[in-house]
Amino acid sequence: MVINYTPIGIIKTPFKKKEGMPIQPTGAPGVKGEIEIYDEFKDGLKDLDGFSHIILIYHLHQSVGFQLNVKPFMDDQLRGVFSTRAPKRPNPIGLSVVKLTKIENNILHIENIDVLDGTPLIDIKPFIPDVDSPKADRLGWLDGKSNKMGDKLSDNRF
Amino acid sequence: MVINYTPIGIIKTPFKKKEGMPIQPTGAPGVKGEIEIYDEFKDGLKDLDGFSHIILIYHLHQSVGFQLNVKPFMDDQLRGVFSTRAPKRPNPIGLSVVKLTKIENNILHIENIDVLDGTPLIDIKPFIPDVDSPKADRLGWLDGKSNKMGDKLSDNRF
Repeated sequence: MVINYTPIGIIKTPFKKKEGMPIQPTGAPGVKGEIEIYDEFKDGLKDLDGFSHIILIYHLHQSVGFQLNVKPFMDDQLRGVFSTRAPKRPNPIGLSVVKLTKIENNILHIENIDVLDGTPLIDIKPFIPDVDSPKADRLGWLDGKSNKMGDKLSDNRF
Repeated sequence: MVINYTPIGIIKTPFKKKEGMPIQPTGAPGVKGEIEIYDEFKDGLKDLDGFSHIILIYHLHQSVGFQLNVKPFMDDQLRGVFSTRAPKRPNPIGLSVVKLTKIENNILHIENIDVLDGTPLIDIKPFIPDVDSPKADRLGWLDGKSNKMGDKLSDNRF
């Protein structure tokens, strides 16, 4: 079974190469980006400006191939790729919750963006804390480290 | 540009038809499901069992076509589809944060699952509150309603 998706827009950011980037939105406080939604999908943006935060689902277009075990940025051991947010995944899909500051026509102004310039956007969803933020009590290999993900920059490993 | 993904597994749940389902994980407290990860991706599950919650990204396989404006389950007005979690999206991708109770070989045991039986799984990510749960202060048309999404069942509109 093959699933086909078509980008609904493109994400524009200050990050032109994979090295030296924030690895999560928490590492990009105040970093501004823009999303251009393609004209044919523009009408789907109605009412979105009421939400302070949105979930972006995007295609990690510069990720080539995948590894089932990866050494993530936050660790020096090999971890199963599904227990990490590393980009070299069987399906290279990325997810970021970002701040939405303004919508002008088909342009979304966002903050705390941690993706490469030119990343194809697949979907946008409103971020709803009541359903998207359960109380997690175990964080596995990231326990005690996840609050430091904002301090880490990417290197050339992926 | 066309993006091709291949399912990494399949989600098994008690929900056999689209009507009468919970519309979000909060509407499925304790509802048990299983995910079968296909053998070739099994090694990517290493270390995932340390996390209490995981993000599932899946293909809404029974969603046919899309609408840019939809009447969501929680409202009686038309809303832009990107401001909703409705399934009839340009790219029918779903996202749920569920509880992970156990992994046995290639089978994930999960709770609070709100998807149709047989849904193809595209990706799994660990849920990390520090990066996935910003403080949202505006919820648009869902303001004052999002805590009631757990009480609502689906009907046949999508």
